[in-house]
Amino acid sequence: METIFTEKHELRNARTELFAGELVEPFERPSRAQFVIDRVREVGLGAVSVPDDYGMEPVLAVHDAAFVKFLQTAWDDWAATGAKGEAIPTCWPARRMSARVPNHIDGKLGYYALASETSISPGTWEAAYAAAQTGLTGAQRILGGARAVFSLCRPPGHHAAQDMYGGYCFLNNAAIAAQHLREHGVERVAILDVDFHHGNGTQDIFYNRADVYFASIHGDPMEAFPHFLGHREETGQGAGEGYSVNYPLPPGTPFDIWRSALADALDRISRFAPQVLIVSLGVDTFEADPISFFRLKSDDFTTYGADIAALGLPTLFMMEGGYAIKEIGENTVNVLTGFESRD
Amino acid sequence: METIFTEKHELRNARTELFAGELVEPFERPSRAQFVIDRVREVGLGAVSVPDDYGMEPVLAVHDAAFVKFLQTAWDDWAATGAKGEAIPTCWPARRMSARVPNHIDGKLGYYALASETSISPGTWEAAYAAAQTGLTGAQRILGGARAVFSLCRPPGHHAAQDMYGGYCFLNNAAIAAQHLREHGVERVAILDVDFHHGNGTQDIFYNRADVYFASIHGDPMEAFPHFLGHREETGQGAGEGYSVNYPLPPGTPFDIWRSALADALDRISRFAPQVLIVSLGVDTFEADPISFFRLKSDDFTTYGADIAALGLPTLFMMEGGYAIKEIGENTVNVLTGFESRD
Repeated sequence: METIFTEKHELRNARTELFAGELVEPFERPSRAQFVIDRVREVGLGAVSVPDDYGMEPVLAVHDAAFVKFLQTAWDDWAATGAKGEAIPTCWPARRMSARVPNHIDGKLGYYALASETSISPGTWEAAYAAAQTGLTGAQRILGGARAVFSLCRPPGHHAAQDMYGGYCFLNNAAIAAQHLREHGVERVAILDVDFHHGNGTQDIFYNRADVYFASIHGDPMEAFPHFLGHREETGQGAGEGYSVNYPLPPGTPFDIWRSALADALDRISRFAPQVLIVSLGVDTFEADPISFFRLKSDDFTTYGADIAALGLPTLFMMEGGYAIKEIGENTVNVLTGFESRD
Repeated sequence: METIFTEKHELRNARTELFAGELVEPFERPSRAQFVIDRVREVGLGAVSVPDDYGMEPVLAVHDAAFVKFLQTAWDDWAATGAKGEAIPTCWPARRMSARVPNHIDGKLGYYALASETSISPGTWEAAYAAAQTGLTGAQRILGGARAVFSLCRPPGHHAAQDMYGGYCFLNNAAIAAQHLREHGVERVAILDVDFHHGNGTQDIFYNRADVYFASIHGDPMEAFPHFLGHREETGQGAGEGYSVNYPLPPGTPFDIWRSALADALDRISRFAPQVLIVSLGVDTFEADPISFFRLKSDDFTTYGADIAALGLPTLFMMEGGYAIKEIGENTVNVLTGFESRD
């Protein structure tokens, strides 16, 4: 399996994350991707290629232009205020408040954020752009006939909505790749989100559409980030009704329960009959993940990689979360080698 | 003029405020109230009395019961997670997200917050409750026939909505006092908010009502906190249409411009013909305030106190913001002595 990867991810290197009432070193840090690419090379998964550049058009096919402009200029606008820390929102358009976009960067941050743990730092935009291109290059390989590709995106993308960032995500790499596939002859795309956290951004982007199916298995939002999306009753709306499915699972969920949800999701995806499957691959379902509460063991990742392969679909794996630094490489690559073992 | 004050405000003593990407000592700190009460005594403004206790009923007449319960339990729930810092929300129900209240304290914080600069600390609830009682006691004095009373509330209240806290505010002291007056025979109450920041919570609470008039002069939300309410076109809705008026003013606004807005507000209030006026008294309009951008000088506070007195209404002054620590006492009491000079 080919891996798409660029060291430009290192440009995303924030100093701070707001966590438990303190500013700590971010859980989403450059070493994550390094552990994964090291493991890719260690097991000889296949070629490692740098992404091509598809420009802004596929980004703007998913994200609002004003939001993208904000991401491009936020750090400079913030730095111009003389702030000593990184850019963190402190207020937002809450219930019954105005939807007008403020002029001041403090207000813009709140308008375009859905969470405040994610500091905007210098280089964030450049890294987010490179991650989107990493995903697009994977999608292009699928269009070229590849059975499976691994886009090692960093920063991740699945929490980013058309006009909001947060949860370590800025551009929705999976949504951008899915839309690119749709615009290049693929009629139906399914996105399977196995990250511990609900893929709220991806769901939101395609919630009214019947051409992109979205399935997510995740920590119950009553107990876990992003807290405000990912309930079982969210099944799509309008033309998209019935094209989203959510499996919120409780603290302590072991692999057998998780795997039952996966089997149901794969069955629904199979009936949707997509031409391409995108897997939003977060490995924070691991039992030792520092900010999650499922109980998957390293071998379980191999097992479910094979389960996914059994669908028989061209499959684009895209890196999302996973924060147990030491094991992130092994667990991620286990999914990919598990997929290949069944292939 | 009698002042209502209790040292219980000291129970609100957070260690941290999220400001400019750092956790700093809060601008809203106990010494603020101490400077004001010291100045009250220094000029011999009048008697200083401790508040009576009106219980939870007047609080629950304004705020949602679930929100109040959250405020009462938030610190203990937070401390139980083992978090090292104070309670700060990191995500919230942003655009197109669910309105379901999460179980986990991280989610509850985001659900009930409209801003994240305001850490919840031990004692916060007790101080907020005491501040509400300080306001209620002032309202009771007005019901008893007082011409003017000063409720030295801390923490402040005007950013707190029926179901949201933020901007250093937890319970809306002014709204609770206004509602108490309404329930004790006062048919029409006007609230004049002269704090630098828009009184979004107060406006929101009475936005659909014709019995409580709300006027606010403040930094344009396009440029200043709370950023998402306080635009000129917000004039009330439903039965409340025409009963809110907003004067958003730009950076650098000097007193003559500010005073013109006040004159217009007082004129509108006069035509509303309230039986009681509540003044949400923030003195962060001062030229040296560290987080605001108007240019009032200390003498200007005396001048506008007299302008307010000219309305001839029973007037309840309630302390809101003001962060230029050294001058907060002088500027606040200047409004009150200015009022008395004209009286």
